[in-house]
This record gives sequence, structure tokens and C-alpha cells, in this order.
Amino acid sequence: MNFRQNNRICQLLNIEYPIIMGGMSWAGTPKLAAAVSNAGGLGVIGSGAMKREHLKEAIDTIRTLTDKPFGVNIILVSPYVDELVDLVIEEKVPVVTFGAGNPSKYMTRLKEAGIRVIPVVASDNMAKMMERIGADAVIAEGMESGGHIGEVTTLVLVNAVCRAVKIPVIAAGGIADGRAMAAMFALGAEGIQMGTRFIASTEADTHENFKKLILKSSIRDTVVTGAPLGHPARVIETRFARKVRELETKNLQEAEEVLVGSLRKAVVDGNIEEGSFMAGQCVGLINEIKPVKEIIQDIVNEFYETTQTFCEFVK
Amino acid sequence: MNFRQNNRICQLLNIEYPIIMGGMSWAGTPKLAAAVSNAGGLGVIGSGAMKREHLKEAIDTIRTLTDKPFGVNIILVSPYVDELVDLVIEEKVPVVTFGAGNPSKYMTRLKEAGIRVIPVVASDNMAKMMERIGADAVIAEGMESGGHIGEVTTLVLVNAVCRAVKIPVIAAGGIADGRAMAAMFALGAEGIQMGTRFIASTEADTHENFKKLILKSSIRDTVVTGAPLGHPARVIETRFARKVRELETKNLQEAEEVLVGSLRKAVVDGNIEEGSFMAGQCVGLINEIKPVKEIIQDIVNEFYETTQTFCEFVK
Repeated sequence: MNFRQNNRICQLLNIEYPIIMGGMSWAGTPKLAAAVSNAGGLGVIGSGAMKREHLKEAIDTIRTLTDKPFGVNIILVSPYVDELVDLVIEEKVPVVTFGAGNPSKYMTRLKEAGIRVIPVVASDNMAKMMERIGADAVIAEGMESGGHIGEVTTLVLVNAVCRAVKIPVIAAGGIADGRAMAAMFALGAEGIQMGTRFIASTEADTHENFKKLILKSSIRDTVVTGAPLGHPARVIETRFARKVRELETKNLQEAEEVLVGSLRKAVVDGNIEEGSFMAGQCVGLINEIKPVKEIIQDIVNEFYETTQTFCEFVK
Repeated sequence: MNFRQNNRICQLLNIEYPIIMGGMSWAGTPKLAAAVSNAGGLGVIGSGAMKREHLKEAIDTIRTLTDKPFGVNIILVSPYVDELVDLVIEEKVPVVTFGAGNPSKYMTRLKEAGIRVIPVVASDNMAKMMERIGADAVIAEGMESGGHIGEVTTLVLVNAVCRAVKIPVIAAGGIADGRAMAAMFALGAEGIQMGTRFIASTEADTHENFKKLILKSSIRDTVVTGAPLGHPARVIETRFARKVRELETKNLQEAEEVLVGSLRKAVVDGNIEEGSFMAGQCVGLINEIKPVKEIIQDIVNEFYETTQTFCEFVK
């Protein structure tokens, strides 16, 4: 199979493999994103809580590292959304993915600037709305995903979203290998998004402690913190995560306070005692730190092998 | 494709399609189970809180309704497990599925009696243990499932379990159609288990109110109750479910008390005010009450179509 010939995501984004990097604050650096783009996927800079000048710097950096298409992820809860949107338009960033929320007020300007707009959705109804306002594709992200999550699992959500819209669907949440990619394609998805798998790569500047935690975690070793605070996020179950969950049953304000800055502490400092190590349930399927190029090639190869075996079997 | 020829679940259980009925207390009646078996799947009587004489009656009844293989689901937390295991051995029930828990103390006797033993597992480690003690297959049930659930989603769990064991894997949780079945087979599963889809059938004696709730619910309309009590269960989000979740943050004992008997009130009485309507997230993918035979045929047909389209696409 040649993805370029019959895959709408590859055609839409002008990339070789329909593998997109998740929007990750702190972990989604220009270096990691460039590695993904250079390996044939779509690298995505996680703008997180960045101000305009920081994102400008990140965009300048990635352009020194790759001449392939790349994306910027913008979180709609950021106080700087307006200026970040202005910037990606000025900079003619090829693709923008939006973290859960409704990007409709920015849609017309982004589309007029020729930017591909791909919102993350957590329900089939949201997907339909995004299609209606002109999204080029949607990312259907299930609750097994790392970081901020919805309620519906990838299997159910991707199935429902693929039935609801005609634009291409990118499956996200719990995907770290070629088998999961094949399963998502069987449901009708045309691309996958991965976050945790790319953190466990050579090129990620994510702290070694974080990478080690991913390697040693099983599929049962993540928990959700922040749910009672209205911003549920999946993290690796460390002593800190257990403490946060306990605080959430006793003192919400204190829970909120210890969570502030905790993602940075995990990604940048590797601070086991105070960091939120956001990661998906697929940590249990990741056993090796590898170069990004190898990760993508392995997934594409396993996707081919899996589909061949499967298609042979069901003939 | 002929399942009989190359599918280990069909060969193991001597059935036509690798589609198993979930172990459902109250809803898993002999009538519904017989309909599933007569349609080529494996019908399963949910023994729930039954005593020996009630299960004996149910087994006698199903034998008047079908001459096809059928199963009995035994919940390992039942106070009557010992006597139910004695009974299924005496009755030479073809297949026993076990609700989450460890059935190892019964394994030797069941296997010696020629019974196929298929435990439900919520982790890859549990699956390996079950394989080691002689289980014929395992059911990997994700947390999008209805009723009592674990923490890991179907996509991640089935992937991990298929990599962990050599015995056949049956995927469960969030599956109600042929696309999801194809996705699970792409992951390496060789069968599917469905509960909610079979409740929404003509033959289910489940109260009309329950069936109507399934039809009108979206993928986001289930919640988990009982988690703080140590027995999390997925139910449709009714006013009662919201009340239980609120009680759980305030008065655990009262929450426990209102939950007693609440499944029976939902299934048998259709009591919207006091019933726990256990159902999976796939309620959002179910739009029609149909005869069981049609449900199974539609799923098999969609499985074929989906795999053909998919296999054509990835050629």
C-alpha cells in the first residue's frame, strides 16, 4: 500500500505516513516535532501556555530543523489564543490542531490563510459541528489517552465519529503500535495521533525520569487526576498522583494548587515528587526508547504485517 | 470466510459465529441465551445471585429452547459459587464464563468434566495466569463495557492480552457492530462478547423502559457508579445514577444501600427512579430493537463488508 495514493490524511497534509504527533505542552518541542516530520509523519509543536514570542521562536527553530510540513497545537483554554492564532496565520504554519474546545471563531481566517485546521473532538456531535464549520479533519481522542481527556473510549468514539462525518478521522488515545493503527483503520479512521509513544523516543528532550516511568509502567498504571476540578487528565500513577486524588476528596483548592506547574515539573525537571507525568494507558505497550524514525517505521511495518495477516485470515 | 474452518473460538465452542453473549444478571435469561445460541452464537445464562435450584431451572429451560451449545456465567463474588460449579459439572454445561475474579480452585474439576472454561480478565497479567492454569480462552473486557468494569479500555486491553497469551482472546466492552468486531480481529482477537446489544433485542425480557433508554442514549450518556465502594459499574446516566454518584461523595453507606437490588429494579421492573440500568458506552451506537438472529446476521455482514473494504484499501 502506498499511503500517498489512497490516504486522505497524507494527501491533505502532504506527508508520507498518516501518523500525527499529539499536542503536548512542554514535551512537544520543535526538536521532537521536526524528528516526526522528517520521519514522514506530521510533527506538532505543543504551544501549551506559550505566549506569542515563545511560539514564534519555536516556529523559527523547527524551520531550521525540517523543510517538511509541520503543525502547531493550540489549546483553546490558553489566555493567548488570539495572539497565537494571529501568529500561525502570519507564519503560514501548514497545519493547526486545536485542543478540546470549539475553535469556530478562528475558522474562517485560518482557512482563508490556507491553513489545515484539525480540531480534537470528544463526541460524535462535536465532530459533526466541526465538519459543518469547515474543519479539514477531526482527531477523535479517547479517554485512554494521556493528558486532558473526555469520557468516551477510543473504540467507541472513533466508531461513532467515523459514522457521523465524511471528513477524514484521525484516531487518538491508547495507540502506540501498528496493530492499534490497523484496528483504527478497520473502524474507518484514516490516520492516528500518538503522544506517549513519541515521548519515549531518543529525540524527546523529556526528562529521563519520565521516559523511565513510561518503560516500567503497565497498562494499569495510569490514573485520572483533576476530574473533580473539571479538568480530568490521565497521568502515570506516582505517589504524587495518589496524593492529588486523595486531596480531591478532601480539599479541592489544595489539589488545584499542587497541580499548578506540575506538568512542567514532570517533563522538564523529572520531579517525581511534584510532577504530573501525563501519559496514556498504552504506556503498558511501550518497552523501548527508540529514535523517532524507527518508531514510525516499526509502526508502519507492523501495520502492514497485521493487515496482511488479518486480510489473509478473513478471506 | 468460513468461521468454522479457521476460527478457534468457533472450533472450541462448536458454534457458527464467534459471538458470545455477556454474563448478565437478570437480563441473561434462558430465553435470550437460547435465541443467541439458535442464531449461531453462544448464548450465556447469567447466574448472578442465583442459588443452585434457580440455575438448575434455567438450565432445564434453555435445553427445551435450543439443542445448540450454550454457556453459564458464574460471578466469583456470589456466595453460591461452590454449589453452582457443582451443578454445571453435573449438568455437563458446555461452557462456563467466569466474572472477574480468579476461578483457579475450580479449574481442574471443570476441565475434567469436559467443560470449556473462559474467564473474564481485566489485565494482561491476569490473562497469562489464566492461560497457565488451563483456561481455554479469555475474555478481555474493557472499561467501556456495561456493568462491573476494570480500568483499562478495550483497545489497550485487547492489544496487551493478545500479545500476552497464545490461547484465543474474546474482546468485550464497547462492541455492538461489525466494524468494532473487525477492529478487534485486527488486534488479534478471535471472538467478541456483547451484552448491551443483546438487551436491545426482541427476545430480551428486559423491561421496555430499559430498552428505550438504550435507544435514546448517546455514547456520552453512561457513568460509573460504585467506584468509591470498590465495585465500579457502568450504567446509563439517569437521575438515580446522578444521585448515587452524589451520595458517594457524601455518605458511602447510604450509596451502598440504594444500590442494593437496583439492577433487578432496572431490568425486571423498569424502575427509572430506583434502577441501575447497566449498559456499555456502545448504547450510542444502538438505534434499533431487533430479533437476535437479525442482530447477529447484521454484525457478521458488516464484519465482512468492513474487512473487504479495509483489505481492499490497504492492498
